[in-house]
Amino acid sequence: MDTFLPVELGHASRLVNHGPTVLVTSAHGGRRNVMAAAWSMPVEFVPPRIAVVIDKKTFTRELVAASGAFGICIPGTSLVDLTYAVGSSSGRDTDKFARQGLRWRDGPVLGMPLLEAGCAAWLECRLIPERHTEDAYDTCFGEVVAAAADRRIFARGHWEFRPDNADLQTIHHLGAGNFVRSGGTLRAAAASA
Amino acid sequence: MDTFLPVELGHASRLVNHGPTVLVTSAHGGRRNVMAAAWSMPVEFVPPRIAVVIDKKTFTRELVAASGAFGICIPGTSLVDLTYAVGSSSGRDTDKFARQGLRWRDGPVLGMPLLEAGCAAWLECRLIPERHTEDAYDTCFGEVVAAAADRRIFARGHWEFRPDNADLQTIHHLGAGNFVRSGGTLRAAAASA
Repeated sequence: MDTFLPVELGHASRLVNHGPTVLVTSAHGGRRNVMAAAWSMPVEFVPPRIAVVIDKKTFTRELVAASGAFGICIPGTSLVDLTYAVGSSSGRDTDKFARQGLRWRDGPVLGMPLLEAGCAAWLECRLIPERHTEDAYDTCFGEVVAAAADRRIFARGHWEFRPDNADLQTIHHLGAGNFVRSGGTLRAAAASA
Repeated sequence: MDTFLPVELGHASRLVNHGPTVLVTSAHGGRRNVMAAAWSMPVEFVPPRIAVVIDKKTFTRELVAASGAFGICIPGTSLVDLTYAVGSSSGRDTDKFARQGLRWRDGPVLGMPLLEAGCAAWLECRLIPERHTEDAYDTCFGEVVAAAADRRIFARGHWEFRPDNADLQTIHHLGAGNFVRSGGTLRAAAASA
């Protein structure tokens, strides 16, 4: 059963608005990689743009520079161990997809490898080259060109965190392998219905 | 009782590593302001640097440009209503500190107004002028020059999310006044002790 449905590009920023730790996927010339990134954020609603910090020493950065594209996959709580593992090793000499037994689908626009099993959502992004910020802050900007989410936790443009979808709830890295889970929805009193 | 203690600058990135929604504070020429920002991230550990998206139409942006400084305060769950309120109105014609009855302390290095009551932590930042990214992506970079946290939830360089400090646990904006709370610590199996 395919539980992933496309997300309107105008809603893509909502997938990362609350600051989850993400997996950055990349591919070029027959090689592919996946790493964890705690440091990402949206920067624009329309067109949907995001920023993500990818250290210039990483293999991911090399693949992203070569292909001009990357994927952002949002792991659920069941992928805590995987997230930490792919964030603690380099893919330069190892195919982390093979080692971790990961299946991926090819992104619909740019062909980036995108993870769905255990993930809440993904965004496929075209790199917006910004040499200075890439050099000075390892900060890479991208435009989201496709997005999808598991309809069990993101539907009709909104996250729905419920007790029955705890496995898909997002994780947020505190550091050193300790994560917190998003949950316990709070509603501001002044928010309109 | 003052429950805030200084945080080593080398640990400052940990305060925002997990993607909380923050309050951006600013002051210049006798005016001050506070707004909410869901879009921020660390970009470097040492020196500790962060990026935050501040729309160029906001009064905050005007004050930050004039003073070359801003504060980042991290609200706990008890400040959900305040966070949404200060994120939904402009401070150009209103002193939001006065309207919301907010008390602040002056930042130790740059004199930014910093909130402690109800907040888990704060960071005082010096703007790193980057005209292009400010213009193109509303993305402002800053270097953290001072930081402090409530020792009931951040101690010895680490967050400690426990049932007894739920009020100080961080909030993460999903959109439209809906927030999730960080909690339920998960530990990656491969993480060292």
